[in-house]
Amino acid sequence: MDEFRFYQPIQVRYGDIDPQRHVNNSRFFTYMEQGRVSYFQHLGLWDGTDFDNLGMILLETTITFNEPILYGQSIRVGVRTERLGNKSLNVITAIEDAESGRKLATGNSVLVAYDYSKTQSIPIPENFRRLIEEFEGL
Amino acid sequence: MDEFRFYQPIQVRYGDIDPQRHVNNSRFFTYMEQGRVSYFQHLGLWDGTDFDNLGMILLETTITFNEPILYGQSIRVGVRTERLGNKSLNVITAIEDAESGRKLATGNSVLVAYDYSKTQSIPIPENFRRLIEEFEGL
Amino acid sequence: MDEFRFYQPIQVRYGDIDPQRHVNNSRFFTYMEQGRVSYFQHLGLWDGTDFDNLGMILLETTITFNEPILYGQSIRVGVRTERLGNKSLNVITAIEDAESGRKLATGNSVLVAYDYSKTQSIPIPENFRRLIEEFEGL
Amino acid sequence: MDEFRFYQPIQVRYGDIDPQRHVNNSRFFTYMEQGRVSYFQHLGLWDGTDFDNLGMILLETTITFNEPILYGQSIRVGVRTERLGNKSLNVITAIEDAESGRKLATGNSVLVAYDYSKTQSIPIPENFRRLIEEFEGL
Repeated sequence: MDEFRFYQPIQVRYGDIDPQRHVNNSRFFTYMEQGRVSYFQHLGLWDGTDFDNLGMILLETTITFNEPILYGQSIRVGVRTERLGNKSLNVITAIEDAESGRKLATGNSVLVAYDYSKTQSIPIPENFRRLIEEFEGL
Repeated sequence: MDEFRFYQPIQVRYGDIDPQRHVNNSRFFTYMEQGRVSYFQHLGLWDGTDFDNLGMILLETTITFNEPILYGQSIRVGVRTERLGNKSLNVITAIEDAESGRKLATGNSVLVAYDYSKTQSIPIPENFRRLIEEFEGL
Repeated sequence: MDEFRFYQPIQVRYGDIDPQRHVNNSRFFTYMEQGRVSYFQHLGLWDGTDFDNLGMILLETTITFNEPILYGQSIRVGVRTERLGNKSLNVITAIEDAESGRKLATGNSVLVAYDYSKTQSIPIPENFRRLIEEFEGL
Repeated sequence: MDEFRFYQPIQVRYGDIDPQRHVNNSRFFTYMEQGRVSYFQHLGLWDGTDFDNLGMILLETTITFNEPILYGQSIRVGVRTERLGNKSLNVITAIEDAESGRKLATGNSVLVAYDYSKTQSIPIPENFRRLIEEFEGL
């Protein structure tokens, strides 16, 4: 599947532009992080305020850079969960040109359910699993 | 005068939040920078692409912090030119809560007209002056 | 007085450079923030780990920009407390070229002693006052 | 091989810390970018000033996160070239605790030789290839 049920528009800032005069590579990461956080909020997995209770940590991420992002460009991050394992899940993110839908970069991240109070990974909580499955139709 | 004819909405990012769990002080600066750049684009003083020809450099800025900015808060930056000198101008910026209009921070910046090719300050070009005066009703 | 008893060297990153091909203005703020935090650690006012107990909040800051900072330039931030009031203090910061000592930017910040648990300003604690007075010879 | 002939120490900034109270994930990317840029400078592939002539663009990067990075932690980025293809090369980066040598994160990046004036990928220039082979003993 190549589409997303959730998109987060991202505002490119002057301060995101680097000496190459396009968006700095590290900001692609920041944009995808914003996509993921917004997605989890949208699904009701995070309340947007309790930073001690984000519930997930990032284990690995791969970013493929297709095109530079320019100042003034209208972009959005598409986010979807592709795989729900026992303790981990794969989240796909794509930075798209908001007008053409062209993929400027794609990301594949492995996240792990995490109990911050016990500082250890845990099985994905049942309500998380259910909310993701329902939203994604998995 | 206390109002603005130009407002730039700003998207608070997860990556803007610091260990105090509100927006890092340096990001107030980034938000105001974005406000100023957008204002100059809106007035036709910058085309949004020619980074060798921004025409202005920042000489001094004062920021007053009234309230913390929180993740999820809807904010905007109001921008206006308050004084047009021979070579310099004063630009006022205010970060406001977009719902209540409450001022979360205010900035007062002195900018200087600058010729990047000659790397020296210059009198504010006449078309800059005219565009600002017209927009602000100065 | 024009000198500092504390200097924090700062590492300029490629990611700090903006399309003007010098350090972005907002990073001057980040560098000065790093100077202040390091200074408070050096004086024993912060332990470097307890983010709920930084003890100070920033009320106002003025930055004067003298020279651009370039990639590869060796810089340091000088920090000193200039005034100790009842609840507030003035902290002077200067970003200097580490080789020539030339001031690239200067900052004047007003900080306020703050009780995070009560979320209100408080008189500067006596031990803070004493440690600063001793260090600065005030 | 698991070691590096080049290490770039990195200064963790207060401004790098996120609400989780460790270094924000996107900064791992910034640290590795700084490692790569410093490595290319060290090998004589970039002069540190000509931003129109960096010679390489990033095609893909994978980061594995092993441990959080804390404020005050002494870290360094190890960098090496692992594979030299016709147009592309693989650069391995590892963020290490500078005291224990423990790997906090590892990165695997594919870079492509690029002619900025023609905006197209090119075969890796012979002098680049030779300098890398000599340094790495490839």
